[in-house]
Amino acid sequence: MLISTLLLRALSCSACQWKSLQGSKVGYCKGLFFPGLDKPGNTSNPLGSKVTPVFVMQLSGLNTLGVSIARIDFAPGGQNPPNTHPRAAEILTVLEGTLYVGFVTSNPDNRLISRTLKKGDVLAIPQGFIHFQQNVGYGNAVAPATFGSQIPGVITIANAMFGANPPISDAVHAKAFQIDKKLVDKLQSSFWMIINNF
Amino acid sequence: MLISTLLLRALSCSACQWKSLQGSKVGYCKGLFFPGLDKPGNTSNPLGSKVTPVFVMQLSGLNTLGVSIARIDFAPGGQNPPNTHPRAAEILTVLEGTLYVGFVTSNPDNRLISRTLKKGDVLAIPQGFIHFQQNVGYGNAVAPATFGSQIPGVITIANAMFGANPPISDAVHAKAFQIDKKLVDKLQSSFWMIINNF
Amino acid sequence: MLISTLLLRALSCSACQWKSLQGSKVGYCKGLFFPGLDKPGNTSNPLGSKVTPVFVMQLSGLNTLGVSIARIDFAPGGQNPPNTHPRAAEILTVLEGTLYVGFVTSNPDNRLISRTLKKGDVLAIPQGFIHFQQNVGYGNAVAPATFGSQIPGVITIANAMFGANPPISDAVHAKAFQIDKKLVDKLQSSFWMIINNF
Amino acid sequence: MLISTLLLRALSCSACQWKSLQGSKVGYCKGLFFPGLDKPGNTSNPLGSKVTPVFVMQLSGLNTLGVSIARIDFAPGGQNPPNTHPRAAEILTVLEGTLYVGFVTSNPDNRLISRTLKKGDVLAIPQGFIHFQQNVGYGNAVAPATFGSQIPGVITIANAMFGANPPISDAVHAKAFQIDKKLVDKLQSSFWMIINNF
Amino acid sequence: MLISTLLLRALSCSACQWKSLQGSKVGYCKGLFFPGLDKPGNTSNPLGSKVTPVFVMQLSGLNTLGVSIARIDFAPGGQNPPNTHPRAAEILTVLEGTLYVGFVTSNPDNRLISRTLKKGDVLAIPQGFIHFQQNVGYGNAVAPATFGSQIPGVITIANAMFGANPPISDAVHAKAFQIDKKLVDKLQSSFWMIINNF
Amino acid sequence: MLISTLLLRALSCSACQWKSLQGSKVGYCKGLFFPGLDKPGNTSNPLGSKVTPVFVMQLSGLNTLGVSIARIDFAPGGQNPPNTHPRAAEILTVLEGTLYVGFVTSNPDNRLISRTLKKGDVLAIPQGFIHFQQNVGYGNAVAPATFGSQIPGVITIANAMFGANPPISDAVHAKAFQIDKKLVDKLQSSFWMIINNF
Repeated sequence: MLISTLLLRALSCSACQWKSLQGSKVGYCKGLFFPGLDKPGNTSNPLGSKVTPVFVMQLSGLNTLGVSIARIDFAPGGQNPPNTHPRAAEILTVLEGTLYVGFVTSNPDNRLISRTLKKGDVLAIPQGFIHFQQNVGYGNAVAPATFGSQIPGVITIANAMFGANPPISDAVHAKAFQIDKKLVDKLQSSFWMIINNF
Repeated sequence: MLISTLLLRALSCSACQWKSLQGSKVGYCKGLFFPGLDKPGNTSNPLGSKVTPVFVMQLSGLNTLGVSIARIDFAPGGQNPPNTHPRAAEILTVLEGTLYVGFVTSNPDNRLISRTLKKGDVLAIPQGFIHFQQNVGYGNAVAPATFGSQIPGVITIANAMFGANPPISDAVHAKAFQIDKKLVDKLQSSFWMIINNF
Repeated sequence: MLISTLLLRALSCSACQWKSLQGSKVGYCKGLFFPGLDKPGNTSNPLGSKVTPVFVMQLSGLNTLGVSIARIDFAPGGQNPPNTHPRAAEILTVLEGTLYVGFVTSNPDNRLISRTLKKGDVLAIPQGFIHFQQNVGYGNAVAPATFGSQIPGVITIANAMFGANPPISDAVHAKAFQIDKKLVDKLQSSFWMIINNF
Repeated sequence: MLISTLLLRALSCSACQWKSLQGSKVGYCKGLFFPGLDKPGNTSNPLGSKVTPVFVMQLSGLNTLGVSIARIDFAPGGQNPPNTHPRAAEILTVLEGTLYVGFVTSNPDNRLISRTLKKGDVLAIPQGFIHFQQNVGYGNAVAPATFGSQIPGVITIANAMFGANPPISDAVHAKAFQIDKKLVDKLQSSFWMIINNF
Repeated sequence: MLISTLLLRALSCSACQWKSLQGSKVGYCKGLFFPGLDKPGNTSNPLGSKVTPVFVMQLSGLNTLGVSIARIDFAPGGQNPPNTHPRAAEILTVLEGTLYVGFVTSNPDNRLISRTLKKGDVLAIPQGFIHFQQNVGYGNAVAPATFGSQIPGVITIANAMFGANPPISDAVHAKAFQIDKKLVDKLQSSFWMIINNF
Repeated sequence: MLISTLLLRALSCSACQWKSLQGSKVGYCKGLFFPGLDKPGNTSNPLGSKVTPVFVMQLSGLNTLGVSIARIDFAPGGQNPPNTHPRAAEILTVLEGTLYVGFVTSNPDNRLISRTLKKGDVLAIPQGFIHFQQNVGYGNAVAPATFGSQIPGVITIANAMFGANPPISDAVHAKAFQIDKKLVDKLQSSFWMIINNF
């Protein structure tokens, strides 16, 4: 099949139709099914949380569908650290547990919108805003998230700022955070976390 | 504030920013929170199912965010009947129970893609395709759904076809379904279901 | 030419420019021309109608142009049965004849919007809504349709519901339409129509 | 009803749903119907052509539907002069007569794609490209056009260039067209045509 | 890597991520850098102007980013002749010099919006509108332009109208501009300018 | 004028046409002009930089045009601190001076893409990615930026993280950055910068 024809399909068909156009009827549309989201992610790590994404990389049939999901698990005290999604808004629902959640509005307000969510509570987070969740209950917590993009992307602020490879110059950080370089170096050297860095 | 200015905001801001531009800081962004999605919907009806939507009509902060969710409850044997969303693809996750689910591809194939989903299984459904779920397990079933639009819309096929108001002419239906008018009349007279007709 | 370059073009060029970038000037842009839409479709079939599409599959130059058309022919009494387009709104114009046309709004209203259209009448149909046309005049009828997508898709409700392959379980249909399985079986067995199932 | 609520609807509903949300059921969705497109436009003018648009200004229900149409009539020898649509691709179908049609590709090729179209021929024209039609047959010609926008916009090149109000400086034109100012003045003074200037 | 996977990336990733997915870490993201825009374009030509584009063809990393820029240089008296961008609005900033600039609104107004811009002045030009700039100062002028598309496209009106290849029929032009064919021939024969015809 | 009509315009017209539809010809389209971008911003502040935006709030005619610009001034050593735009990609051009610039890719790579840019260099930055610039030359530096949105939004990481109001809990920060609360408190108390927090 010509590449131009493939292109033509991909630009306007659903993933499912597009597969059928390649002539293979066996396994037709199987790329729309994903099992096992009932399994808790492994939270035995310093952050005490784990994100299990179902983006187009995990479920190829999401191609062109404009939506994806993820499961977030939290041990007691566990945190999904401040992060942002460059290509989608998010809706977070608390399935189990109690989460302290927040996001910060853009300049010039930088207003913290925060709330303690219990089971059944839903929070919407505008596209690109920095947000976080922390388990403030006694047991585990689980919160499914949904995104208005097949690849919302994830930027964990601490990782991007202090765990970048190669590192951001400490002179840049010192000025940006108005701290001395020694402190920047300390932040950068101690930063090694990649648990939710999927 | 001028209408033109309001328009200007709505076209490009997130709901949250837009509210702040109206000068009211009290209750800022409260339109992004929705409680109670842990409560089962009432399935004591002939279909044995209930959809609880969290669209922009229920959660105003979803305005311009391009994503929404719903909770679907099923009694044993309960069904979310064949329906379609005119403005969004859907991702369905089984939270509890066992569901027989399916959707039919568009012309010319009209291929039924169906599967029995158990807890933790995920299915993606392309935009505008007719789909259904039926609880084939012994207990209740719960399945959250997510959509890539703030108002995906819901068209229940049976309601639109046989429960329209005023009714579609029985001559139209007789030809479309290749049945006699008496049967059409029977279908139309018996059809009174509005349970998931939200 | 590299695939990455092809991708790059397809995402932002018109079909016509894109072809020229491949270096072939012979037949340049011929994919923008389609002949013969004055020829009536063959309506000698039980529905008494025929749809002739000019989508991107028939006219490759429509790629990325976001618009397509179709010609619909009706014998006296002929019907374009209830159908929906998952990816585009439609504008229907009556060129010859008299058509009873209708569409049904989404839940919760399921309101039938219907009208008898005569030559020169125009009707707009929102994206994803179920609609139909029936020739209620004495002679043939012709109605060109236009769509805001290069592949609007077509889902004929009766075909998708009762002619799916493999068939939808009669238990599902019995519950959805509130009829007994014997009647469902009758509907499914009698359904064999693929005339406008392009 | 609050303006914010109106805004919210307009951004994601079809026109038809949106009207219903305002509580008025009388005349529900009447903005989706437009009569009289079978009537020829008046071509008794120097260009010998007439465009009858059905854009959102003429048919309010097209709001958010992303598609519109027009009817173009030509007397023998009549011309729809070089024009461009800033916001949509176009598909032109010849319903009656014989048209010499063309469009010019963008820089650097400026290649003229032209063809004589007879009844039933279809031509697609990429968004923003300059194009024209001229009736080269013996009788009248009619050509419906469809657009992938509810307001494609129309810019008639001669009107915009030589009939602008106030006029473009003749020094600008002299340089652009590499002609002397006297000739520019002649072009500007003789230009008074507003027939298809809708 | 499979083509389908490439397609999948291109449809939703930034250019930068997409490159990384091909496994090559050397030169990662170099497609996002473009040098030398401080160099004046060569204006030694009859128009006295030169456009230097940075579109996706010049800077491949702009793929899917929806934005591009260009540098426009003007000798004294130099002109960027009437042109239009079929796929993007433009913002023009005067960096050096004094420019007489204008654009013409669409039908039916054809209103000329013009202004003499000096250093530091900014003008926005809606998508698809015909516009021009002329250096009316004593020295050179420089004006960077920005576009809301990775390939805005450029259609120079005079080139498209009188320099098309093959030429537009003089009968068409004679009618469109209401001039005699001899004058059309003169315009077409004298037109040979391709300086800013990139 | 009815609100519904205003809505209708705003959704599909350019700002300029929309204004004309309100009947006011005086000052027609003046919302498309913005003066004074040649004036350096005041960099006499601890960051040594100043951003001057020309977004839709400053230039109302950008409404629906999908593009905006900004001017960024840097004193020697001045920094535009790490920030992100939730709704647009950016193209940065160095007009004067020498800038060390960088951005970090999203998870899981968190790769720093950095480069020293001199006069005439151009860098594209994908949507939502954290990026920064620092003047590493001897004199002032100036860098215009362009965005593919009329309101790209600006989130300054340090302000959002440590200057939010009310503050983000130090327990959240301690875990996210793996530092003790005392250090978090220090970071939060010292952070008071709002220079480029427009």
